Amino acid sequence: MTSSISPAVWRVNLREKSFRREAVPASWERLGGRGLLARILLDEVDPTCDPLGPRNKLILAPGLLVGHMISSTDRISIGAKSPLTGGVKEANAGGRTGLQLALLGVKALIIEEQPTEPGWQLLHLSADGVRFEPADDLAGLGVYDTVPPLLQRYGNKVAIALIGPGGEMRLRTAGIQNLDKDRSPSRISARGGIGAVMGQKGLKAIVIDGSGGAKPSLADPQAFKAAQKEFTQALMAHPQTATYRDYGTAGIVMMCQGFGCLPTRSFRSGQFESAETISGEYMRQVLLQRDGDCETSHACMAGCTIRSSNVYGGPDGKAIVSPLEYETIGLMGSNLGIGDLDTIARLNYEVNDLGLDSIEIGAALGVAAEAGLMEFGDGERAMQLLKEIRRNTPLGHILGNGPAIAGQVLGVERVPVVKNQAISAYDPRTIKGTGVTYATSPQGADHTAGLTIRAKVNHLDPAGQVELSRKAQINMAGYDTLGACIFAGFGYAAAPHTIPALLKARYGWDAPADALQALGRETLKLEREFNRRAGFTAAHDRLPEWMTREPLPPMNAVFDVPPEEMDQLFNW
Amino acid sequence: MTSSISPAVWRVNLREKSFRREAVPASWERLGGRGLLARILLDEVDPTCDPLGPRNKLILAPGLLVGHMISSTDRISIGAKSPLTGGVKEANAGGRTGLQLALLGVKALIIEEQPTEPGWQLLHLSADGVRFEPADDLAGLGVYDTVPPLLQRYGNKVAIALIGPGGEMRLRTAGIQNLDKDRSPSRISARGGIGAVMGQKGLKAIVIDGSGGAKPSLADPQAFKAAQKEFTQALMAHPQTATYRDYGTAGIVMMCQGFGCLPTRSFRSGQFESAETISGEYMRQVLLQRDGDCETSHACMAGCTIRSSNVYGGPDGKAIVSPLEYETIGLMGSNLGIGDLDTIARLNYEVNDLGLDSIEIGAALGVAAEAGLMEFGDGERAMQLLKEIRRNTPLGHILGNGPAIAGQVLGVERVPVVKNQAISAYDPRTIKGTGVTYATSPQGADHTAGLTIRAKVNHLDPAGQVELSRKAQINMAGYDTLGACIFAGFGYAAAPHTIPALLKARYGWDAPADALQALGRETLKLEREFNRRAGFTAAHDRLPEWMTREPLPPMNAVFDVPPEEMDQLFNW
Repeated sequence: MTSSISPAVWRVNLREKSFRREAVPASWERLGGRGLLARILLDEVDPTCDPLGPRNKLILAPGLLVGHMISSTDRISIGAKSPLTGGVKEANAGGRTGLQLALLGVKALIIEEQPTEPGWQLLHLSADGVRFEPADDLAGLGVYDTVPPLLQRYGNKVAIALIGPGGEMRLRTAGIQNLDKDRSPSRISARGGIGAVMGQKGLKAIVIDGSGGAKPSLADPQAFKAAQKEFTQALMAHPQTATYRDYGTAGIVMMCQGFGCLPTRSFRSGQFESAETISGEYMRQVLLQRDGDCETSHACMAGCTIRSSNVYGGPDGKAIVSPLEYETIGLMGSNLGIGDLDTIARLNYEVNDLGLDSIEIGAALGVAAEAGLMEFGDGERAMQLLKEIRRNTPLGHILGNGPAIAGQVLGVERVPVVKNQAISAYDPRTIKGTGVTYATSPQGADHTAGLTIRAKVNHLDPAGQVELSRKAQINMAGYDTLGACIFAGFGYAAAPHTIPALLKARYGWDAPADALQALGRETLKLEREFNRRAGFTAAHDRLPEWMTREPLPPMNAVFDVPPEEMDQLFNW
Repeated sequence: MTSSISPAVWRVNLREKSFRREAVPASWERLGGRGLLARILLDEVDPTCDPLGPRNKLILAPGLLVGHMISSTDRISIGAKSPLTGGVKEANAGGRTGLQLALLGVKALIIEEQPTEPGWQLLHLSADGVRFEPADDLAGLGVYDTVPPLLQRYGNKVAIALIGPGGEMRLRTAGIQNLDKDRSPSRISARGGIGAVMGQKGLKAIVIDGSGGAKPSLADPQAFKAAQKEFTQALMAHPQTATYRDYGTAGIVMMCQGFGCLPTRSFRSGQFESAETISGEYMRQVLLQRDGDCETSHACMAGCTIRSSNVYGGPDGKAIVSPLEYETIGLMGSNLGIGDLDTIARLNYEVNDLGLDSIEIGAALGVAAEAGLMEFGDGERAMQLLKEIRRNTPLGHILGNGPAIAGQVLGVERVPVVKNQAISAYDPRTIKGTGVTYATSPQGADHTAGLTIRAKVNHLDPAGQVELSRKAQINMAGYDTLGACIFAGFGYAAAPHTIPALLKARYGWDAPADALQALGRETLKLEREFNRRAGFTAAHDRLPEWMTREPLPPMNAVFDVPPEEMDQLFNW
């Protein structure tokens, strides 16, 4: 079952239409996923280059542990210099892409330059290498309509990473979608506009056929199996695993309501009067009642035991969108004053089909509401504004480029962004550790870079939040380098020795007990260095000024972690 | 005739509706204009603040030599943290504002905070101090319609600094207009979006009645008069003075055509096939022939002997706009493929009336053409796009916020900006010293920060351009601190000892022989420090990447001054 294919760097040049396999440089070997992206960007991409110019590179790298269907640990990292933040960018997702690349022995796929001719093409990866194929017939199609003809052409077993109309329009909120295990393009490497980089390179899709490959070789298959088993048991024993299985990420809505951090009406309040009808508990009742296509629990990757995903169906039981997740509920629900899950699901489908980041678009619609372009709570109007994006109108371009640009263009000061990237669904004034993460992460505002809400601390007290964020950021950078889902952390945290055990069994390395943190620290250091060279300074590691002076009801908290303390976060 | 009014800092707080006169701090005394703005910004404004938030300040400061009608040396500097660049900003202009403030003994007018209530007001400055007056009746009016009721209310002798609809909309290309000596609001402190700062503060106009004041006192009136006379003679003897009197700034069109640096069709060429019909020589013929309101030479400030301004009239002799200047001709003419002065003049009037920077808007329309929103050469369509700005539409907001934002929103990579500010009408690929200025000036791309085109060097050779730019930037920062027009430099350069002589005669200081350069160096140092604290690094001191790889026909030059050499510019 294990492979004789040796891991390689696959390099594609779109100007030359060339492909070659290269040996993995020694300094890249012990990295994967997010850490490897940072290393490659630092080694190969001028940090001052135009992110939508030919010198930027689009890079796909499976995490270090990807390829053996360890539960929730087959994620793909996709990155580039971000057109949204201007800095380093990694966006990871579940689905099939990571596994299929690992089967082909792809340590990293590096896509360089851009075509000399206009038009759309796709890359087809298999054990035979890379083929360039025309894709003009797919131009303008939403992601859901793009997949069926591709599966017909390339077979049902391929993985696909693709962009929607948003990426084709080079919108800075465009992500790259990945097929899930059921072949729905619902796993989005969402953040930082990497879909625009793919669009700029004239690539509509990357199709990966791992059928001629094999699982990555193992240094010690027995030990690997044992560690994998122990991890899975630890994960399944964790109480949060059951919560996420039953309620998905939406299970956190009422907790956020309680903390007063649920973004409501463009971050004007931390509690929403209709929080209950957008909660995970309510959603579960609705889905159980509606039946049909509805699923309260659904896996995005083969082998996942958490199954935090879901299929949200309408009153007729027909699927509207899958999954419906907390960040979307927060940003496109309460943040827009919308308390109806059916409406949120329809907005979510539209954003997905366009291939855009629902966090950015939700925040941008909030800015539009601040500018008077819609009333809070008006789901119909919100949908009309999304149609403006699809119709490629000036207003659509304003919103489709995210809240930072929308705020600048529409003259709205209250814009929830850091490094131009939208703050996600935990208001930093009441969850201050996550606020520190938003402010200081090299990725820009991003809850997945170090969420602190589950820590048993007073989240309103500025003291100790830097340390809390530091630990969370190091751990998350480590997980993102392994290819582990944020929720796999429940298991790894309960059985931390399984991480060095898995690394040793797979690669033969003598990984230290704190291998996770060592990888995390290295990754953050590389990312910070890229950003430094791109022109970032401490002045950019700040929340929006208005969040430091506008108290958030009902807790009436402002963000007051001292900047000079945040500036010490990376001095560990 | 000289004053017993001692110079003071006038401080207005819009939240408290308060005003007070303060003694001038010792460290501010020997600065004026641009240098003083930088000092005040560094002392009082958090460089990381939101430029459109309450913590930014709008500051007006006459240059050090303002107040005695020395030819071309009564300019006003207006500044703030720039909403366009995010850095330090000074925009100076001729007209009456500087002189009237000097008559009142205003060393600097510092406007803080913003009102707690919506609505528009104006500030009225006189020897009695500052009054706050309602101005809601003026909201939405173009600058040309705003002035007559103000003159009726406050008398014909006042100076006025005001914003148009663009500033009210807080567009990041909005400037602040100043009345010229004939009471036309044609002297625009154009760059960096300071009109948006004024708009954000709810100020439609600042009216300055210097009638109760007096000229600033002189330490040695006789010596002052002698130095002033010597300077004026040197200025009048300079051959360029006559050129500018006859042809205005447009006299340089054919020179730029010759050098291949005339921006044409969004910087796709450095020569324009219709250059002759937009040249200064052609314009002079047209104006002489049309007569009526037309003037080939016109002064913007009392006492100016250069009179580089003009009044451009249509075929019926009726004034269309005054002045019609080279930067506008370059950016709204050749840059848009428009070879007809009447059309350019009408576009110019529209932009002026909106209160916007014609350089930014010309460059933004070029970006719009790149994005397919207009055909190059289509003046009618260009006017329609300007009407979009006036009508406050989404497209209007995209264009009205300048080419950097327009490029991001419309997905155009070829955007001619540095630090988000538009490159002016000298393509840096063929005038490389000016390219160095664009790249490195703390102000963002700005020809007035250090134009090198008149130097007798090979402008295509990258060697020596950093030194050339350094000298020009130091001199210009010095002139901007004195309150001297760029063209006053013809006289001061011919009689450099008149600068320390004038400073000594006015203030009693023992100014060094290189007083101009000493002031310039100090100013640049302060500005760089503000930008450093705002988060600027060497990575921001770069021309757009595409200008380093896209050769400019017909010279087929790219910008190739080495970045590491530019990084040494401020190490003098």
